[in-house]
Amino acid sequence: MSALRDVATDSPIPLSAITQWDFEADVAVIGFGAAGASVALEAARGGAQVMLFEAASGPGGTSALSGGEIYMGGSGGTPIQRLAGFTDDTEDLYQYLMLSAGPNPDAAKARQYANESLSHYHWLIEQGIEYKASYIAERCIEPATDDCLIWSGSEEAWPYAAQAKPAPRGHCPKYVGAGGGKYLMEILANRVAETNTAVHYNARAVALIVAPHQEVHGVAVRIDGQLRTVRARRGVVLCAGGFVMNRDMVRRHAPLLLRSQFPIGAMDDGSGIRLGMSVGGATVNMHEGFVTLPWYPPSSLVHGIFINEQGQRFINEDSYHGRVSHHAISQLGNRIWLLQDQATYATSEMQTFARMEIGAAGETWEEVEQELALPQGSLTQTVAVYNQYAAAGTDPLFHKAARWLKPLDQPPFVAIDCRVDHCFYASFTLGGLDTLPSGAVCDESGTPIPGLFAAGRTACGLPRFGAGYSSGLSLADATFFGRQAGLHLSNTLR
Amino acid sequence: MSALRDVATDSPIPLSAITQWDFEADVAVIGFGAAGASVALEAARGGAQVMLFEAASGPGGTSALSGGEIYMGGSGGTPIQRLAGFTDDTEDLYQYLMLSAGPNPDAAKARQYANESLSHYHWLIEQGIEYKASYIAERCIEPATDDCLIWSGSEEAWPYAAQAKPAPRGHCPKYVGAGGGKYLMEILANRVAETNTAVHYNARAVALIVAPHQEVHGVAVRIDGQLRTVRARRGVVLCAGGFVMNRDMVRRHAPLLLRSQFPIGAMDDGSGIRLGMSVGGATVNMHEGFVTLPWYPPSSLVHGIFINEQGQRFINEDSYHGRVSHHAISQLGNRIWLLQDQATYATSEMQTFARMEIGAAGETWEEVEQELALPQGSLTQTVAVYNQYAAAGTDPLFHKAARWLKPLDQPPFVAIDCRVDHCFYASFTLGGLDTLPSGAVCDESGTPIPGLFAAGRTACGLPRFGAGYSSGLSLADATFFGRQAGLHLSNTLR
Repeated sequence: MSALRDVATDSPIPLSAITQWDFEADVAVIGFGAAGASVALEAARGGAQVMLFEAASGPGGTSALSGGEIYMGGSGGTPIQRLAGFTDDTEDLYQYLMLSAGPNPDAAKARQYANESLSHYHWLIEQGIEYKASYIAERCIEPATDDCLIWSGSEEAWPYAAQAKPAPRGHCPKYVGAGGGKYLMEILANRVAETNTAVHYNARAVALIVAPHQEVHGVAVRIDGQLRTVRARRGVVLCAGGFVMNRDMVRRHAPLLLRSQFPIGAMDDGSGIRLGMSVGGATVNMHEGFVTLPWYPPSSLVHGIFINEQGQRFINEDSYHGRVSHHAISQLGNRIWLLQDQATYATSEMQTFARMEIGAAGETWEEVEQELALPQGSLTQTVAVYNQYAAAGTDPLFHKAARWLKPLDQPPFVAIDCRVDHCFYASFTLGGLDTLPSGAVCDESGTPIPGLFAAGRTACGLPRFGAGYSSGLSLADATFFGRQAGLHLSNTLR
Repeated sequence: MSALRDVATDSPIPLSAITQWDFEADVAVIGFGAAGASVALEAARGGAQVMLFEAASGPGGTSALSGGEIYMGGSGGTPIQRLAGFTDDTEDLYQYLMLSAGPNPDAAKARQYANESLSHYHWLIEQGIEYKASYIAERCIEPATDDCLIWSGSEEAWPYAAQAKPAPRGHCPKYVGAGGGKYLMEILANRVAETNTAVHYNARAVALIVAPHQEVHGVAVRIDGQLRTVRARRGVVLCAGGFVMNRDMVRRHAPLLLRSQFPIGAMDDGSGIRLGMSVGGATVNMHEGFVTLPWYPPSSLVHGIFINEQGQRFINEDSYHGRVSHHAISQLGNRIWLLQDQATYATSEMQTFARMEIGAAGETWEEVEQELALPQGSLTQTVAVYNQYAAAGTDPLFHKAARWLKPLDQPPFVAIDCRVDHCFYASFTLGGLDTLPSGAVCDESGTPIPGLFAAGRTACGLPRFGAGYSSGLSLADATFFGRQAGLHLSNTLR
């Protein structure tokens, strides 16, 4: 092992420097979140000998911090969607996934996921995940109950609704309150434990082991302080999350996210992405991230309008909270307000949690404008134009749907303070390694790097565009494409 | 050479696979634009044996397509600035460079350039570049004459003017009309020819040659169809431009630039950046690019206001054309207009070139609004608020300077069509390899990769933020930091 002593973290180690392998397996999985668990399950069940290395002292990763929600539909609808009265055509799911991915969608992944999302639902059921046959019509971030189906994206909002028939697709597991991600991960980890997967905790991958021409033959892992070499006969799969907790990487690749002071992640130190890059792995959309201020529920707030510090609206407010928030942090200046009147204003625990307080109130919009020290005519004219059209049931500027349009004309009026540098704008990264649907990591020319795979936030998958993100896409991507990598590796001999 | 036959482009070649070197030198420079020329000059003059490989059949690169303008100042001012009556403190230049670099500035490069910009001016003079002692006060993109000093950034505009004392810093060479970049490159190429630098044309670098632990020992170059190995005893310097002509890379890393249909570049296929990445070189700000619609001269147009398809203003219009244009392409929707009244409207050849035509005209702003099919009250209320404050000499919404404020109240009124998908929005990339001021390429952990350097648009240098770009920054960065790499390598023994 002396040859490895002074190897810098991340620098690939030449195969020729390896004098012995401490471990050998068909597949080495790095990271035990939802992606890593799904890789291990499919690979092990397909007959591969799998080793899984997790830097923390137990399974879960960032998946366990989430609500456990998974974005699913298509093929006419999942059983939960159908029972709630929704049909969901595969083409509508596909179109929505493509639109929500922004200017650089991955059509192959969107196509495969749309086609196979229903079967993925059944796979999750087979693992033991339970879903209650229930639907919540009210806008929410995640249910406080054990209910299942929610609207978790911008499906009903412009421009999505015009191009893909809307359906609610967020499936929350049957678990009361927050913590659905922990529930999901416990079940997946239990299933992994039933396979012959060898799991090591406190085990951090520090370098890939490569033959000439960047073929990946293994990985060096620091386990309880000792550097160990792992031969992976079929491949190494990087499932080590994104990079939102690595603020230096955020600064260099996704500086817009620096505006969010609440990064969400377990490890998410970018180590998986960096390992891939160290052997020529290309990245995609590294500047993209999800940002949100959870500004609803209650739904009635959707009747209000957001303005920036120029007193201008900037988005149709019936969009998903993350889409609205992405546009909020993209405005010039930190000051953002949500305007409501007496008919639409309501409070919730979520507002308290999100640090949203009343910034100004008045009997007229002129008073609110003055109290916010906005230039005369800025806020008031924005409201006047909005009200004029809302009364007629249209929003020609931003295309908010008619059901959410109501003139804000019932005093008193309030401006809820949604300052970017004060409120709870949470964030995580969406950019990562460029992969094929099989999980194979590609170099900058699009050629797969032999022996290297990635899934979950270490890869750039279905969710890759902050302004189009929908809740449940990350776990959908992690579990589904984790499975694809596992299936691929269970069938592959080098 | 047989070992090299089937090597894929970009994949590093292990040193152990090299059986013979076709060429040997101290320094191998890839690309003969302004950066490559500056590296070669300083390295060769310092005693290094330099070889320069250019993929085209002559020198110039994208530098030769430019106006040849270089952003300089500080130390009290260049001789041209002083003769024009401007002083320019080093700290003001430094502050401006930092602000213009956005949320992720490179303080070390900005500091060195601010301190040494004046001596860089003298170096350029020594090479034979001539500057006429003249100043153009009128807003322009580049002079039609052989005049020198222009305002080439947002120095006088908010928020820059409040934080750094403005001075014009764009130095255009003494060359009549467009083509100053060709003039600049001819002179630099002539100087290179006077050194012992060995120049190969039709010579494309296809792979780096690396020892274990990513040390770069040389480069494989395809010269007239033959693959040749080049040993670089001190270092390989990548000066191969940006990636704007590689639309696949643009799609994956800087998709906002896809909205610009006029990429500006000679080669700029990303090959230099890709070679750096292939050995673990980190990148910075790959999503950033310069975009511009050259919407002035004449200066009088700066009195007008830009609106988006919601009828809203979005930026102080006295900003540099590229800053305005960056915000234009960041709006929702393709439709952008520049509003003028009879007192401010004027035509120029630049407008024709830029495909800017009158989209609507009227005796009242209501007529213009109707003709553009904008919602009633959108454009008119924007103009009303603007006019109300402009009459008082203030712009509380976007902080346009008082000298450019004038109510747009003299009919007839016009809306100049600046559609993003129709007009001449030109673009190039600003992201690239992460380098130290010496040009050393760093890996993702910030550690220099031994033997690998980069300069010009292959690196991420002074200009790195589309919304803050100023003309002349790219050539300033390419020539100055090209020189630093050359100086470093002339003094370095491995």
